[in-house]
Amino acid sequence: MTEQTKVNADLQQERKKCTFNITELTNFIDGGPHMTEERRKREEKVLKEGIHIEEVPSEYLSHKEKYELAVKKACMLFKLIRRWQEEENTGMESFRAVLGGSLGSAILQDGSPLTLHYVMFIPTLMGQGTVEQQAYWVGRAFNLDIIGTYAQTELGHGTFVRGLETTATYDPKTKEFILNSPTLTAYKWWPGGCKYQFLFNDHDGTYVNSPSSKLTYGTMMFVRVVLVNDMCNYVAKAVTIATRYSAVRHQSQPKPDEPEPQILDYVTQQHKLFIGIATVHAFKLSADWLWNMYNNVTAELEAGDLDRLPELHALSCCLKAVSTADAAESVERCRLACGGHGYMLASNLPLTYGHVTAACTYEGENTVLLLQTARYLVKAWQQAAGGNTLTPTVSYISKIYAGRRSPPWDNTIEGIIEGFQRVAAGKIGLSVTNIEKRQKEGMSYEDAWNMTSVQLSQASESHCRAIILSTYNEEMKIQAASASPELKKVLFQLVDLYVVYWALQRVGDLLRFTSISERDIEQLHRWYEDLLVQLRPNAVGLVDAFDIKDEILHSALGAYDGRVYERLMAEALKSPLNAEPVNRSFHMYLKPFMQGKL
Amino acid sequence: MTEQTKVNADLQQERKKCTFNITELTNFIDGGPHMTEERRKREEKVLKEGIHIEEVPSEYLSHKEKYELAVKKACMLFKLIRRWQEEENTGMESFRAVLGGSLGSAILQDGSPLTLHYVMFIPTLMGQGTVEQQAYWVGRAFNLDIIGTYAQTELGHGTFVRGLETTATYDPKTKEFILNSPTLTAYKWWPGGCKYQFLFNDHDGTYVNSPSSKLTYGTMMFVRVVLVNDMCNYVAKAVTIATRYSAVRHQSQPKPDEPEPQILDYVTQQHKLFIGIATVHAFKLSADWLWNMYNNVTAELEAGDLDRLPELHALSCCLKAVSTADAAESVERCRLACGGHGYMLASNLPLTYGHVTAACTYEGENTVLLLQTARYLVKAWQQAAGGNTLTPTVSYISKIYAGRRSPPWDNTIEGIIEGFQRVAAGKIGLSVTNIEKRQKEGMSYEDAWNMTSVQLSQASESHCRAIILSTYNEEMKIQAASASPELKKVLFQLVDLYVVYWALQRVGDLLRFTSISERDIEQLHRWYEDLLVQLRPNAVGLVDAFDIKDEILHSALGAYDGRVYERLMAEALKSPLNAEPVNRSFHMYLKPFMQGKL
Repeated sequence: MTEQTKVNADLQQERKKCTFNITELTNFIDGGPHMTEERRKREEKVLKEGIHIEEVPSEYLSHKEKYELAVKKACMLFKLIRRWQEEENTGMESFRAVLGGSLGSAILQDGSPLTLHYVMFIPTLMGQGTVEQQAYWVGRAFNLDIIGTYAQTELGHGTFVRGLETTATYDPKTKEFILNSPTLTAYKWWPGGCKYQFLFNDHDGTYVNSPSSKLTYGTMMFVRVVLVNDMCNYVAKAVTIATRYSAVRHQSQPKPDEPEPQILDYVTQQHKLFIGIATVHAFKLSADWLWNMYNNVTAELEAGDLDRLPELHALSCCLKAVSTADAAESVERCRLACGGHGYMLASNLPLTYGHVTAACTYEGENTVLLLQTARYLVKAWQQAAGGNTLTPTVSYISKIYAGRRSPPWDNTIEGIIEGFQRVAAGKIGLSVTNIEKRQKEGMSYEDAWNMTSVQLSQASESHCRAIILSTYNEEMKIQAASASPELKKVLFQLVDLYVVYWALQRVGDLLRFTSISERDIEQLHRWYEDLLVQLRPNAVGLVDAFDIKDEILHSALGAYDGRVYERLMAEALKSPLNAEPVNRSFHMYLKPFMQGKL
Repeated sequence: MTEQTKVNADLQQERKKCTFNITELTNFIDGGPHMTEERRKREEKVLKEGIHIEEVPSEYLSHKEKYELAVKKACMLFKLIRRWQEEENTGMESFRAVLGGSLGSAILQDGSPLTLHYVMFIPTLMGQGTVEQQAYWVGRAFNLDIIGTYAQTELGHGTFVRGLETTATYDPKTKEFILNSPTLTAYKWWPGGCKYQFLFNDHDGTYVNSPSSKLTYGTMMFVRVVLVNDMCNYVAKAVTIATRYSAVRHQSQPKPDEPEPQILDYVTQQHKLFIGIATVHAFKLSADWLWNMYNNVTAELEAGDLDRLPELHALSCCLKAVSTADAAESVERCRLACGGHGYMLASNLPLTYGHVTAACTYEGENTVLLLQTARYLVKAWQQAAGGNTLTPTVSYISKIYAGRRSPPWDNTIEGIIEGFQRVAAGKIGLSVTNIEKRQKEGMSYEDAWNMTSVQLSQASESHCRAIILSTYNEEMKIQAASASPELKKVLFQLVDLYVVYWALQRVGDLLRFTSISERDIEQLHRWYEDLLVQLRPNAVGLVDAFDIKDEILHSALGAYDGRVYERLMAEALKSPLNAEPVNRSFHMYLKPFMQGKL
């Protein structure tokens, strides 16, 4: 490779093969050319400040040094944003960009110490404060004159809010709240954020009720909706890294007379990666759709209409659970697809996995959330049984309830999606039957629920799959309507891949609850394998279109130029251990030990 | 909790409920009371030296400090072993204990820098050296007068050995090998071990062939066999931690008038944990069985009989792949089952996951290994088609090939195992059909293989499942023959749980390739749920029987006394950040930033 051809030859070749306009897809993802331009400008502006540059990568530092560096960087970053706000009156997008999984992670790889302030503290003020309180506090919080956190969890208490032990008692004399954590298990734990202040400035100490007690869910739902979107960013990163690396890496020699192929040419590798690309689009459209619904429901709430709140709650629960679990699996699969190099911190895949898998636990543990959705689904089933009309996202239940017999299987995208609805309805129905059977055997409802909860959580997951599959397909039809024919073709190949992939993953469910046959399944396998072949030439183009800057990817394996080995070597040389020919531990321990003198 | 009742009350209660003798099970796992006694003595002897004690947990140190500490500890540890060898002539068990996932991990949590020396370097000397070479080198290596490593991987080359670029040329003048890594991609990478020497002292530089070129596989197979056993240790650790924590932790209030239940009482939690307990036993018996087969085949090899070598190779490949993948899933599930506390390093679950998931990549990447087994299975299928007799572990293929129609489903353990054999045979057959079909369409064999490789790797996994299920069941019948009725009952509940769990996981496969019905599946669900209820009172007893000392578990959540919150608090106080009331970063960055003075 000479100085003139700085991009790896394989990647150049891949980019030539691409059948669609990469910029068109980037614009499509961003929501228009204007949005792409704004995002890029913002990224350049932040990155040119150089806050992200580390002389010694922070992975080599001690815990304390890492902490101090993170506080320093966070202050520098938000100082910059504060300056913009003053100079240019930039909007919320600047905050979202530096708090989310994209731009912010270029600067603060372990996450920002100020994230909770913005995604929990401020939304709580806005969702639950009175108008007067908001007028006083929200501006100060945005400007970081005060920094708050969200200190719900206690050492011995998590999900179950009523179990919390800490009390806050108002003292009218001092006009202060007296906080009391009476036991070891009452200690506040995981408050996140680097400095926190309790904000119970409700002035006379009485609690002012929100317009509805249900509004308390607002903050949590908001965060869950944001989380689904974050998952897109993480999966997009991981799959960009793994796909580019797979185009550069050559391995083995299946045909004796030919050179070692790119590992991207192995179908098992395509099987690991392409579903990740499709997942980004599926989650993106689902997150947008959920975001719209969130805004609509919030508007309805303000008008006093609470009808769709339980539905939104049920949706945000299962979408949070399924998107985080899928994202974790997808990122880990990308890491495993990069072999030993994927295990290195320099790939940035282990850290990305750490962020994503944490999301399976925080903001509502996934199993707990699936069971929350299950409660809603069981109610919906009972309503359908009573002949009532159901809200839109569960209306399929009454349709299927009405005509219980499986229609002939339709081996198309629409047919598969309908099959998934049939699976979800079938599993909900079966769970209800089992609960009732157990009650008849003498169990309490709570015990019968508990005994059936593995099946209930699986029913909930199936419901969520049906939602994601149909949303992805339907929203893509709308969004891609004005795309060029070349792009449209690839976008729908991804939809097909996603739907067929999940049909094959859940073939047992389909066999139980629909009339799919062995012949249909074999056709699906073939269809899936053909889709991998069709997508292969566009793989690099598809991840290029995510348009993630090298500073944000932060990966020796995934950089745009594909100079994987040069970058790995450069990273290894940054290790303080490689700054000296022999570490002192050799002279202190190993040499005397080998000579029997230790 | 007073000083007198130092063990958490819930755990005391759990131990009282246990229906079998915990010591009997520990002895069963160790292979007899004598073995338990020896192991415990060894552990006490090592631990009383105090090498494992860290004033500041190493997670707070810098990379370089961690490295230096690991070298120091490794030298201290092996100095101890060397002393024992001289004083007491202890055997291989001492090495295995300090190198494996159990005792060694108490001292070197990131793994021992000398592991590769023992599990790769010495076995290679023993497997491939001439008698003269062995006489000269093996003793020196065991005594650590020389330290070797296994430096196969290069920056640009992994699995494909023929692709390696580094050359070793013998110089008769100096009687030395001249090593040459001509390019960037030829750099030796991942040599592991803290200091390495190439050992090409084959004296005149010519390569002396092993008795068979196939013996070269010896070292690799040995390591894979050892790995399956290591996976037991890791899963046993993780499930001990998560089960004890789940007995101590209380959460939510499903019944309004009752206190918060132990989270172990939630069936979804039992679903996450009990399969982990069963997995340990299933892997342990499979590993022992594979180890016996390895020794038999090695003995046959020495007698010049190579017949069973390909079968052993195929088995060690798929068992390595499936056991590491299952172990990773199991450990991660345990971590997720412990909520936010499981995410803390102090739980020791994240580090355990790091070790286990690494094993999915090293010693043969899992997908590559599954496809190695698939080659063997395709050959076996073709032999069955030709009417030939097959070696024992694939003989089920000819049985099924001969009578292709599915017999009526038998909803028993034996029936399910036969069902899994039918699934494996069915998938192998379908893969062969698809390869042949693609060849008829004009593809080369290699391309047809590649296009079918997703299905092939799945067939290989199904074969491995059938092997593990039947080995677990059959070996347990033999091993547990003389156990007490109480213990036997629990051991077979675990076998049932394991088999039924996997039947439900692979219900799609069973529906495709056997005559299982919806009614059978619903019975399996019920059977599974009943097994969880039966195992519930013995959960803590079952993990206690793994008899993992607190120093080895190294977990605030999993200690024998269950004082989870005290330990979590104590761990938090060890952080250097908590040794000072306010970190300097507040004064340096955060305060000036909030005041607008940064």
